[in-house]
Order: sequence, then C-alpha cells, then structure tokens
Amino acid sequence: MLALTKVSAAPAREAAPAREAARAREAAAGSRAGAARAPGEVRGSVGGGDSYVVGVDFGTLSARALVVRVSDGAEVGTAVSEYRHGVIDRSLAGHGELPPDWALQDPADYTAALGVVIPAALREAGVDPGQVIGIATDFTASTCMPVLADGTPLCQLPGLAARPHAYPKLWKHHAAQPHADLINAVAHERGEKWINRYGGKISSEWQFAKALQVLDEDAEMYQRADRWIEAADWIIWQLCGTETRNACTAGYKGIYQDGSYPSREYLAALDPRFAGFADGKLAHPISPLGARAGGLTSAAAALTGLPEGIAVAIGNVDAHVTVPAAGPVAPGKMVAIMGTSTCHVMNGTALAEVPGMCGVVDGGIVAGLWGYEAGQSGVGDIFAWFTANGVPGEFAEQARRRGVPLPQLLDEKAAAEPPGASGLIALDWENGNRSVLVDAGLSGAIVGLTLATTAPEIYRALLEATAFGTRLIIETFKASGVPVTELAVAGGLTKSAPIMQIYADVTRRPLSVIGSAQGPALGSAIHAAVAAGAYPDVPAAAQVMGRIETDVYRPDAARADVYDELYAEYVRLHDYFGRGANQVMYRLRAIRDRALAGRGGPAGEAR
Amino acid sequence: MLALTKVSAAPAREAAPAREAARAREAAAGSRAGAARAPGEVRGSVGGGDSYVVGVDFGTLSARALVVRVSDGAEVGTAVSEYRHGVIDRSLAGHGELPPDWALQDPADYTAALGVVIPAALREAGVDPGQVIGIATDFTASTCMPVLADGTPLCQLPGLAARPHAYPKLWKHHAAQPHADLINAVAHERGEKWINRYGGKISSEWQFAKALQVLDEDAEMYQRADRWIEAADWIIWQLCGTETRNACTAGYKGIYQDGSYPSREYLAALDPRFAGFADGKLAHPISPLGARAGGLTSAAAALTGLPEGIAVAIGNVDAHVTVPAAGPVAPGKMVAIMGTSTCHVMNGTALAEVPGMCGVVDGGIVAGLWGYEAGQSGVGDIFAWFTANGVPGEFAEQARRRGVPLPQLLDEKAAAEPPGASGLIALDWENGNRSVLVDAGLSGAIVGLTLATTAPEIYRALLEATAFGTRLIIETFKASGVPVTELAVAGGLTKSAPIMQIYADVTRRPLSVIGSAQGPALGSAIHAAVAAGAYPDVPAAAQVMGRIETDVYRPDAARADVYDELYAEYVRLHDYFGRGANQVMYRLRAIRDRALAGRGGPAGEAR
Repeated sequence: MLALTKVSAAPAREAAPAREAARAREAAAGSRAGAARAPGEVRGSVGGGDSYVVGVDFGTLSARALVVRVSDGAEVGTAVSEYRHGVIDRSLAGHGELPPDWALQDPADYTAALGVVIPAALREAGVDPGQVIGIATDFTASTCMPVLADGTPLCQLPGLAARPHAYPKLWKHHAAQPHADLINAVAHERGEKWINRYGGKISSEWQFAKALQVLDEDAEMYQRADRWIEAADWIIWQLCGTETRNACTAGYKGIYQDGSYPSREYLAALDPRFAGFADGKLAHPISPLGARAGGLTSAAAALTGLPEGIAVAIGNVDAHVTVPAAGPVAPGKMVAIMGTSTCHVMNGTALAEVPGMCGVVDGGIVAGLWGYEAGQSGVGDIFAWFTANGVPGEFAEQARRRGVPLPQLLDEKAAAEPPGASGLIALDWENGNRSVLVDAGLSGAIVGLTLATTAPEIYRALLEATAFGTRLIIETFKASGVPVTELAVAGGLTKSAPIMQIYADVTRRPLSVIGSAQGPALGSAIHAAVAAGAYPDVPAAAQVMGRIETDVYRPDAARADVYDELYAEYVRLHDYFGRGANQVMYRLRAIRDRALAGRGGPAGEAR
Repeated sequence: MLALTKVSAAPAREAAPAREAARAREAAAGSRAGAARAPGEVRGSVGGGDSYVVGVDFGTLSARALVVRVSDGAEVGTAVSEYRHGVIDRSLAGHGELPPDWALQDPADYTAALGVVIPAALREAGVDPGQVIGIATDFTASTCMPVLADGTPLCQLPGLAARPHAYPKLWKHHAAQPHADLINAVAHERGEKWINRYGGKISSEWQFAKALQVLDEDAEMYQRADRWIEAADWIIWQLCGTETRNACTAGYKGIYQDGSYPSREYLAALDPRFAGFADGKLAHPISPLGARAGGLTSAAAALTGLPEGIAVAIGNVDAHVTVPAAGPVAPGKMVAIMGTSTCHVMNGTALAEVPGMCGVVDGGIVAGLWGYEAGQSGVGDIFAWFTANGVPGEFAEQARRRGVPLPQLLDEKAAAEPPGASGLIALDWENGNRSVLVDAGLSGAIVGLTLATTAPEIYRALLEATAFGTRLIIETFKASGVPVTELAVAGGLTKSAPIMQIYADVTRRPLSVIGSAQGPALGSAIHAAVAAGAYPDVPAAAQVMGRIETDVYRPDAARADVYDELYAEYVRLHDYFGRGANQVMYRLRAIRDRALAGRGGPAGEAR
C-alpha cells in the first residue's frame, strides 16, 4: 500500500516553470478557472449557490478532508489530523510487546478523525455545511478487521482491548507471510484460476492471509468475528449505518473474481476451519465505485457537522481513487502514484493476464472497465533510505548552508550530470519486487562502482533504477496486449523536477502531472459528487472535476538514447538475478536469517 | 604499485593483546631481545662495538630511513622526509597543465631526501656513522626515467625542465594505457612466450609501456635518453657511481625472462623506431638481490654522512623487499603487503604459470628461487573511498565523540556482527582487478541491499570482498601447483584487528604478522647487511634480522563455515561479471566515457 503523503524522499518543492507554462496555456485556451491552480493551493471563490462535496483520505498516520466545489472541482478547504495511536507496531496497551512485522491500528482513531477534519475543512473553506451534498472516503488497503454483525470492532468489546488479533491489521502488517505462502502454494497445487489475476501471488498484506493468521493464532477472535471487513468499507458503515463492500477492495484485496470468492473446497484445503470464511464473513453484494452507499446517519451528521441524509459513496482505496482526480478517465491512461512506493493503475477495455501485475479487477477502478494494478514496492523509500544511510556529512552540510532539503540537493546534483556519466546501474529491489517478478525475496544491487564514484551518483543510479522498473512494467503491459497510451503521475515525488525528467527520458514518454496535491481526497470528492447524483458517472465527473497538466516533462531524445542502453543493462541484470539464473539474493537472505537467529554471543576475537 | 605508508584506511592502532601475547611467548622461549618489539617502536641499546646498516624506503610521497643493528635486526632510529614536489600530476612548472592520468616526480627530490633522512635517523639512533657498514634502498616500481649515459636525468638538462617526458614517470602514471594495449595485442598475435608469465598482460605502469609513450609523444626525449632506468636502480647509481640493474625490477617491470628482454623483432612490430629499445637503453648485466653494487662514493658520503666506501646493495622494490623483513624465507610462505592495495609475494622452487598473476621472475624476490607476485589493485583505498563517500555524518560524529578515527569505528561495528548478518556480498573491483582476472576494465558491485542495510554493513561487505579476493588468489596458486603453506601479512592494514580476523576466517588460515611497522625499510637494511658481507645470503640474514609473529589471528571454524558459503557467492559473481558472461562493466565504462566526452552543454530541463 501507498503511504502517499507520509514519507517522501522529495519534500515540498514547486515545479514552478512547468506550472506557469500550464497556466499560460490554459489562460490562452480560456479554460475553466481553477484548473491551473498550483498543487497545494486550496482556495476558490465560494459562491452562495454552489454545491460542495467532501472527500476524506485515510492514510497511514493521518486523515485529510478536502472540500471541493462540484461545478469545477475547485479545492476550497482542507484539514489534516493525525491518528492518536498512529501505527501500533511496538506494543499494545494491556498486552505488551508485539512480535516483529506486526502493524495494528485503533478504529476509534478513524471515527475521531472524521469529527475533526471535516468541520475544520469546512471552516477553512468558509462553506456552509448545508451546501455539502455528499461525502466519500478512501483508505489504505488492505487494512482489514474483525467486527460483529453490527459493525462493532472486536477490539471495542469489553475485555478484548488487550487482544492483538481483535484490532485492524494495517496494510503494512507483514506477519502473515507464512499464511500467504500457504495460500499461494495451495492455489497453485489446485490450479485455482484466480491466482493468475494476481501475478501468481496473493500478498501477505491482503485479506485472506491476515484472516488466516487470526484463525491460526487466536481462533477465539476468529470465531467471534461475524464479519471480516476492509477499513475502507467499515468507515462507510459508520457514516451511513449500512454494511457495503466496494468492488475495488473486494477485487484487489479479497480475491473476488468473476462474481465469487475462492471456493469452500479451496479454503478447507488451507484449514478445515477456514472453509466458511468467504461465505460467512465476507459475502455481501459488491457495489460499484461511485455508487451511493446510503444517507449520512444522524449520528454521523452530529459527528461531522454535515447534513443528515446526504449521499455517502461506496468506499475506495487511496491509489485507485486517484485516477479520476487526474482528469479524463480513458483506457490506456496509466496513473502512477509515486510516493514511498509507486502504484500503477490503469483501465482497460478487456481482460488480459499481464505477468506479475498486482491484480486485474472488473470495475476495480471505474465501473465498466477492467482495472489493472501494478506496483513498485520501493521508490521514494529507497531514495530516503539512501539519503539517510549512504550520504556523507558534507552534503548535509552543503544543503544546510544553502537552506534546501538534502534530497533536493541530491536531485540537483543528479540532474547536473548527463545520463550514463556515473558508469553505474542499479536494481531497485531494496524492498523486494512487487510487479513483473512479484518476489519479496529479491534485494537491491549496484554495479559499476569505482574509486571515483560519489554518493550523488549512486543516488542518481537509484532514481534511474526505479524509472527502469516503471518502464519494464509499461513494456510488460504492452507485450500482454494492454498498451499504455498516456503516462500520468501523481503523489509526492512529482514535486521533484529532476526525478520527473528522468522518468520522461527513461520511458521516452511525455509525463502528464496531476493538477492537485491532494489526489486521493480529490478523487474521493469526485466519487461523492457522483454518489450525490451531480454527475452521471465517475468519468463524467472526472472530466470536469479532475485536473491534469499534459506534457509537463518531455523526453529528450539524446538522453533517452543513452537510457535505452542502460535500460538494456537493467533488464539483463533484472533477469539474471530475478529469474533464477543466480539465486544469490535468496541465499544471502537465508544466510542472513541464520546469522541473525544465531546472534547472541559476541563475535570471536583474535586469540 | 603499493603506497605502503601513504593512505591507509586504518590509521595507527595497536594490536596490543596479540603483541603482549607474542612478548610473553618470546620471553618464555628466551628468544632474542628486540624481536618482540611493537611495530612502530624504534629503540634499542646501542652498544659501542655493534655494526649497523641503513635501509631507505622510497615511497610515493616520502622517503624513510631506518637504522638497524646487524646482529639482531633491532630498529634503533628512523626518519621520514616528504618529497618537495610530491606527485606532479596537475601541472609542471614552465609547461602548464598535465593531461589526465599523468603522474611524474622530480628525481632531485630523491637525492635530497637521502641527505635529510639518513643523518636524522642516525641522530635519533645515537649511532656513530662509523658503525654503519652498508646501505640499501627500495623504491616504488615501475617508476622509470630517461637519463644520459652518465645517469643524469633528462629533466635536469638545460632547457628540458619544462618537458614532461623528460621526467620520471611514477608507478601510478596511467597515461600509457594505449601503449600497453598495443604491447599486449602484438605479444599475443606473435605468441610471445613471456606474456604468460605476466598473467597474459603487461601493465601500463611498467617500463615498456611508459617508454613507448615517450617515443610516441616526444620522440626527441626518447632519442636523447641514452638509458631508460628504474628509479630503484638510478638511486643506487647515485650512491655508488655505477649503473646496475636489479633482478626484481628487470623481471617484474622490464619483461626480462630467461636471460633476455623481448626481441628486436617484437619491438619493431610495436614501432620500427622502438626496435633497439632493449638493446640500447635497457641492456646491462642483471644483478641478484642482496649483491653489492659498489662502494659509497665520496659525494654520497658527504650527502648522507655515512662513511665513504661502505657497501651499497643492488636496488629493490618496496613490496618484494618486505619478504625477508617478515622473517624466515621459505617457499610457500606468502607475504601479503596490505595497504591501499595488496601485493602478494611468494617464493617457489619451480616455475609454474599461475593464471592471472602479476609476474613470476627467477630470483625476483630472493636469489635462487622463483618469485611469484600477485596483487589486488584496491584494498585500503576501497575502504578509504567508502569511508569518505558512503558513510553518513552520524558515524563521523560518533567517532568524534569517542575520539577514535572513523575507520576504527567502522571496523568495530563490522566486527560486532556475525558473518552473513548483513545479507550483502560485494566484488572488490572499484580499482579494477590486478590478479586472476587482470582486468582494469572491471568495476565494483554490491548485491543484497535492503532498506535495512546500513553503511557499516556495506563497509564490512567491502572488507570481506577483499578477503575473498585474497582467498581466490591463494586458491588459484594452489590449483596451479604452487601451494601456499603460510600466510604472512604486512603493511598498514595489519593494524586493524577486525580486518585481520576477517582475513583469517575467510582464508581459514592463521595469520602471521610481520614484527616491524617499517617492513620495506627493514627489508632494505637486511639486504644492506648481506651486501656488506655480514650474512652469507638474504635468507640467512632474514632468519636473524627479520621479525614475524605466527598465529596472531586464528580462523574461527563457525565463522569460516559461513564465509565458505559467502565465498561461493563471491566466486559465482566474480566469474559472471569477470569472465565474459555479462560484460556490463565494460559497457557501463564505455557509456560513461561517451557521456563525459559529450559533456559541456547543460543537461536538459523540463520544458
């Protein structure tokens, strides 16, 4: 999952020339007001008769509300609030320390956030709550939880506050890997058709692995859970009082394909006690994105200050909801949401099996189209890792003297050299590989180091490696009959012009840049407008309310030629290390695990 | 060439426990006084009737004299002096800027140093010059120069002070690579037998490539040079007034094999004007190491304060001269002189062709034995490069707070983790590969990086990579019928106990450590004693005057087991990148060279 606004290797910077050019173009074309606003600007003329919608983006550490004008998508007010308990990954009150790789959240933080950010955003906007006609939300995923039949989270029941398995498991809870391994092994053994829609692998981050972990480790909690639900759907339940299930999380995180979940027989093969999991705890009609889930309950109205009864849209996921925020929705338009990791989402008119994608889901992004999702598990977090661990103090000192963030200094130094000048090539697998190879056991590599190699050169090689990774995903889609016709970018990394230029040069494609700094929240607002009936469907609303600047970065032919050569080297190393010719990365991991397991005594000394 | 004392990744540190243990052992055994002195200690009782010798080590940036007692090798006084002109690699007075990869020296600095360090060392020793019976020197190599028939360097002739090609070319002058390439191509074309004694490649650092460059670029200088001579031999000429040529540089740097230089026909094939190079400018009887070159001239006596007529030994090379300083000379005892690079020198009783060694020379280390030389072109300088370019400021800050050098901190952090715990493996080719593969076009690589990887872990992986490189050299010798029976270490890196322990564990061998911190100068002193007739030969003198502590570091079986696994990964990557399966390193270098050649215009910007 993305943590879109949380950790970014590229702190806030403005791509001013590009933006001004876009403004000039739009002014010349007499286009709609507000469309050329800078990312991050939130202001509009709030007319008396205008209608508004609220989008709420639930991230990893905080929730953000955005008030948006229905007529043109103008962002008129926003507010953010951090969750009181943040990510619960060290210890749980009353229980003590959590094992490694655990990551829980407290659902009370979600509802509390609603009560803070919506009123605050309305105040900032100066909008009368009576003008708001709908609300929609998006969430990290798969963040899923055990609840009673009425939606009460188990962790809120008397006596269960200290039971770790009673809490929502955040997307980045990675302790269910053995369960995911079992899920995959049995699926392949039985030749389950759905497994290939997920690149051959179900992630430990998703619903089934996490539920199976609960059954395995705390069968009582599993039994007491009437329902197993995504936080994306649970929050809607809190707003409209009705359980719903959205097509996006059901498809991408819940293995819902061709109208059904995995069979009882398959589930029984995982664990006989798990046979009824889908029928009993998941099953529920699946709702298309942008549909109306219900009306805002009086309790939710009291909490948020919004009018009772306004439209509440079906739930959604932060990455996927960003697509309509990036303007016109069209098959072949890939939206890359670039943050700590990158999520590539794209609509297609037909079903194709693209090797190593995260998933393909009917209506998973927009109703009526096949939604494709691919991803790179490490992007901004690789840059952040290197910035923190591989850069000598002199550069931090330079950045300090110039009063710029260190990543900006590194970006600039990277951009100052022509492609290929470092003699380096890297593989971007420091956090594993999520698409094409789908292998968390892979790791990063750098080749071409010399005594003249500098830290900014390695940094540049890492930037380029992630761009090569994106190109390989695009080429894999193309080779599978799903051509990418437009490449649009969103997320925190779009603030770095040097990184964007590298992506344009490496992919040989002009980059369209989303016109909003709050892509997910704007996307949610668009869904709210559709749910409220202001637009017939999401594409129609996106056409008006979404914002994209096309051709912001254009590939340079000479640089692209050099990158073609480097990309060929990337692919060669990618295949050598990633497709079995040399399984050194797995062996190193196994050696490491044994070494760490055996640690305790001090390393031996000379005599 | 080694720059033994110049740049070390491991600044002065004492291996105190090992030393004390050695002291205790020697005390128990009633062994000779002085033998257990700490490296770096220079003091002894200067008795009235004792004889002394002086060894002078000419390094890259300075010369060091060491006064040594003949009877037991006690080091009683030392002095160092930096060359006034250091390395002339940027610009030459009167000429202006030098091209890249040039490195010259001023021979007047060498003679000036003699006049400073010898009197100073004698003063420190409190030794009456009349007690000194001989002097010997060792030099960097191949540092070679054009001179007149009387030994006058061309650069000292009127009107030639501004001619770059009139100066000595320091070992690390790398601008003759095209000439080395030609030398190698023609040698293989013609099937010259000698080429295989040099691992199939003559280095651009050696005599022939550098002389061919002079001919190619400044034919007048080439013609005016009556002789082309190693600085190692030229300095002897200055001391005793007679031209001599030592077996070590003639063999390792001058392609002198089986009693002759390369043939006129071969040289003519390089350039018709070069046909007479060996006959005309090199040819001279070759003297065995330890032989008397002559008596100290009155001029040299006046310069140095030593008695006229005392024995001057034949010239020698800093690495090779270190072998007798490390105690008993025996076939199969490999001495690894570990500094910025590592030079592995070893005697064998028979000629064998070991793939990828630097050279095998009859009497190249000790008269009567075949001298084998291998080397790693980057060791301490890889650690120094990473320390300067890859370590974030927090570690420098920690080191500052603790008052220890950063490399020591990194060594300690490296030693604190068990082998394999980092999950990393590296190739130690940041400065190319000098032995086994003999390929300067290779570069470094690191595999296994994750978001949890830290700078000290990468540092450790680089330490280990150089140890794997040494193990591969040892195994290659063994496979070629030249088994290594003892591994002795010398040079600046021996001061780091963590590094030494890694080497013991990786090679599964106990390490013997030289008992002198001035290995080359002590080795020279030993040759001086032999030249003066105090001992019948170098092995006999080494037995008494050399110093070694055996079993200072012993392999730990459990760590060695893990290293066996990692070494297998090293060899796999070594062969993949180094033996042609993926020539990515050469292609990256070519791409880099094109990129840098085309630089000039600014890199393109977004629109």
